[in-house]
Amino acid sequence: MNNAQGPWKTAITQIEPNHVRVRGHDIGQLMGSVGFGAAVYLILRGELPDEKTARLMDAILVSSIDHGATPPSALAARTVTSTGGSLGSAVAAGILAINRYHGGAIEQCATQLGHIARRCEDASAALDVVAEAILDEMKQAGTRMAGFGHRVHTSDPRTLQLFELAVDAGVDGPHMNAARAVERVFAASGRKLPMNVDGAIAAVLADLGFEPTSMNGFFMIARVPGLIAHALEEREREKPMRRIDPENHEYDGPRQGH
Amino acid sequence: MNNAQGPWKTAITQIEPNHVRVRGHDIGQLMGSVGFGAAVYLILRGELPDEKTARLMDAILVSSIDHGATPPSALAARTVTSTGGSLGSAVAAGILAINRYHGGAIEQCATQLGHIARRCEDASAALDVVAEAILDEMKQAGTRMAGFGHRVHTSDPRTLQLFELAVDAGVDGPHMNAARAVERVFAASGRKLPMNVDGAIAAVLADLGFEPTSMNGFFMIARVPGLIAHALEEREREKPMRRIDPENHEYDGPRQGH
Amino acid sequence: MNNAQGPWKTAITQIEPNHVRVRGHDIGQLMGSVGFGAAVYLILRGELPDEKTARLMDAILVSSIDHGATPPSALAARTVTSTGGSLGSAVAAGILAINRYHGGAIEQCATQLGHIARRCEDASAALDVVAEAILDEMKQAGTRMAGFGHRVHTSDPRTLQLFELAVDAGVDGPHMNAARAVERVFAASGRKLPMNVDGAIAAVLADLGFEPTSMNGFFMIARVPGLIAHALEEREREKPMRRIDPENHEYDGPRQGH
Amino acid sequence: MNNAQGPWKTAITQIEPNHVRVRGHDIGQLMGSVGFGAAVYLILRGELPDEKTARLMDAILVSSIDHGATPPSALAARTVTSTGGSLGSAVAAGILAINRYHGGAIEQCATQLGHIARRCEDASAALDVVAEAILDEMKQAGTRMAGFGHRVHTSDPRTLQLFELAVDAGVDGPHMNAARAVERVFAASGRKLPMNVDGAIAAVLADLGFEPTSMNGFFMIARVPGLIAHALEEREREKPMRRIDPENHEYDGPRQGH
Repeated sequence: MNNAQGPWKTAITQIEPNHVRVRGHDIGQLMGSVGFGAAVYLILRGELPDEKTARLMDAILVSSIDHGATPPSALAARTVTSTGGSLGSAVAAGILAINRYHGGAIEQCATQLGHIARRCEDASAALDVVAEAILDEMKQAGTRMAGFGHRVHTSDPRTLQLFELAVDAGVDGPHMNAARAVERVFAASGRKLPMNVDGAIAAVLADLGFEPTSMNGFFMIARVPGLIAHALEEREREKPMRRIDPENHEYDGPRQGH
Repeated sequence: MNNAQGPWKTAITQIEPNHVRVRGHDIGQLMGSVGFGAAVYLILRGELPDEKTARLMDAILVSSIDHGATPPSALAARTVTSTGGSLGSAVAAGILAINRYHGGAIEQCATQLGHIARRCEDASAALDVVAEAILDEMKQAGTRMAGFGHRVHTSDPRTLQLFELAVDAGVDGPHMNAARAVERVFAASGRKLPMNVDGAIAAVLADLGFEPTSMNGFFMIARVPGLIAHALEEREREKPMRRIDPENHEYDGPRQGH
Repeated sequence: MNNAQGPWKTAITQIEPNHVRVRGHDIGQLMGSVGFGAAVYLILRGELPDEKTARLMDAILVSSIDHGATPPSALAARTVTSTGGSLGSAVAAGILAINRYHGGAIEQCATQLGHIARRCEDASAALDVVAEAILDEMKQAGTRMAGFGHRVHTSDPRTLQLFELAVDAGVDGPHMNAARAVERVFAASGRKLPMNVDGAIAAVLADLGFEPTSMNGFFMIARVPGLIAHALEEREREKPMRRIDPENHEYDGPRQGH
Repeated sequence: MNNAQGPWKTAITQIEPNHVRVRGHDIGQLMGSVGFGAAVYLILRGELPDEKTARLMDAILVSSIDHGATPPSALAARTVTSTGGSLGSAVAAGILAINRYHGGAIEQCATQLGHIARRCEDASAALDVVAEAILDEMKQAGTRMAGFGHRVHTSDPRTLQLFELAVDAGVDGPHMNAARAVERVFAASGRKLPMNVDGAIAAVLADLGFEPTSMNGFFMIARVPGLIAHALEEREREKPMRRIDPENHEYDGPRQGH
């Protein structure tokens, strides 16, 4: 390599004999004292979160750990497993199915909420008025507001809980307010488009200070255990080369209250 | 689809309007009350762990969240990012670099420790004697004992902490004992091969009751945040199509004690 | 990098200013004078094939260019496309679905035919006798003979043509003979397991001198255009986030003789 | 599945017992009579090309079959192989490294050449004048013209040959003219940015009638054999977990004229 410019630089993890430091924090000391949510915050933001924010981070990840056998990521992971693929190949295929229309709404929603928040700030206008205006512009342009509405849930059980935990952690800023405004505007106009978990995650992560371009990563982190569970169940229960019907399946696991 | 056999079955997550239940547990209730480590245990094992085991699960994930810029998975993620690839493509490429020689030692080590533990049980022989015998057989066959030794760390800072947390959680069984025996045998013969973090994770997960075939999944879950951090840093700091020297890099992040 | 050992070596393609040489052959001269099948042979074997072998190589690739919408690789590519994934992500996901049970039979079959051929040689025994014996051993061990039988085709239209082109190219050796023997043994015992295209490709590639471990690569090379066609059709015709039924589809393309 | 709308439709390959028809053409008849380049044209365009266009298609694929060990796709494939990854995982990782800055220039260039061609047509202006104007606009906007210039080649050996074969096949339209114009404008202004192979492929494929969004697919089809060669060589020659220096390597293969 041309060393005229010297070594390239990285600020994430320092490796020395017998020392591993993530953003300056000794990993042996992190283990057992912080949860994985806090470690994710640390490695992406550069510092540890306080306790309530750590709890919020874990809740964000737990909220998206899985959503059953229908999502394309689960089906991609099962398809690869069904042909004899390794666990890693299955997980990689599942990750490759996380895009604009599946898990990717988080980044898009955060960007859109940011527009609303900034125009409200710039114009010193009422938030609901700004939200309505921007939603109209989007409608004209044929763009959907990401993070609202859901095929299955009319009142997403994960949305309310995320906002409560965020407020409890002192996280409640322009993006969360913009999201509430969008929900109000939709409701007032009779459109059944309540905030869904992607929208809630987007608003909370944005008010936590994360950049939209990093947000789909949270969905990936959260969903990998679900992909693994689906791949392992496919391998254990089903014959290879199965025709996997994406709809005609039933849940036969533990019942509620287990 | 041929519905003569009816719908296929899945026992992981139940989706009903406004309800998402992972192995029977309402996800809205899990959020904020259990950490991500406990949720990973739940989705893979079917029940929630007790508090100390949950802490152990988080520690396992935190232990492997990243290991700097040299690992092949980080380099694969950076390479894809450098060509303009999306975050998901970078993460998927990083996952594809997790195999037998990188992260994959966990499954292999757990299997090998299992052999030692079972033969000790069957033969009612002393553990160190059995360990030595099996290590000899492996040497004859040209097979390496996975989970021991490390390029960089002579005393892996993550290994001791994992075993302490495991013992504290009441997890200390045949695999952890077999691992200790292997370490003793290596030390007695003068080979510098202390248990590394993969070996510690293997022993602990096995004594927690996880199957070896699921264990590489833990490394994947843990490492995705690290891959994301590397991809984002590559995009932010470096020009596209960079020649990424896997060795000539330096850490310029927060110093110790930050 | 530690340059004590000097640069690492590669023997595939030489790059110099204004010259690109694949295994010593100027790429500008290859273009227009050899077909892609010959170039594939060249890059993997190190020398150009004669004309009839080049024709055979193209035929092998053409034989596997696609097999409709049901194969898992096509479904994986469509699934990723349906979520908004890029063409490259879709193709990568399709490649990840090429494993032991889908496209991977080629390597397995070539290995198994090799066993039959070698035992026949060692023992100077009649080929059909050896084939029958090995098929029995496999049956005892619960192993399937790869490359024979097909869900849809009782007489695979691609198999006969491949063998004819191979014979015409002077390729007809122990593996092709072993394959014929296996087919005879199956037929004699009443099992409907004619050679399928994977078996034919395996036998022909093996007698061409390719190693079994490289053979799944041929299926990948061949199938990428099919995966691209499926991804592009999915994007063009279908809405995003479609539930893709792997069976309930119909062909509405050009009819026979077009 | 909800069959109210009936089966979904696909127009690529028809599968019936003992018949496989790609866009209406019997695959058994294609094998041995058309080359892979023609089959790629068929499956993507719906009809077979004439002989000279088939030859051009093969040349396009041959032109991009490999470019040595430095390209990120080759390095990604080698990195995955070095960790013990399967051939399919290595190829998939290589495909994931084909993006905007590596192989992706084809689509971008075709789009840009299309702009030039259309404005020239609309305005009935001289092509070089239009090209210069658009290049200026791009410069103002900070956008690079894709398909021109190369790190290594001042006169890409593959470019001239592609255009010659195209002209010989009667393919020479607005995009190829636009590309020539861009080259003239760059030369006149003293910028050393000759057309490279991506630009040539873009111009030729566009004048053949392919959509820009399909063009990166051609690079993928072409490059898979190269990725396979690199993965197999890595596995054969090198130890696992190798630090792969992307620059410090040498060619030790067959010499010129072999």
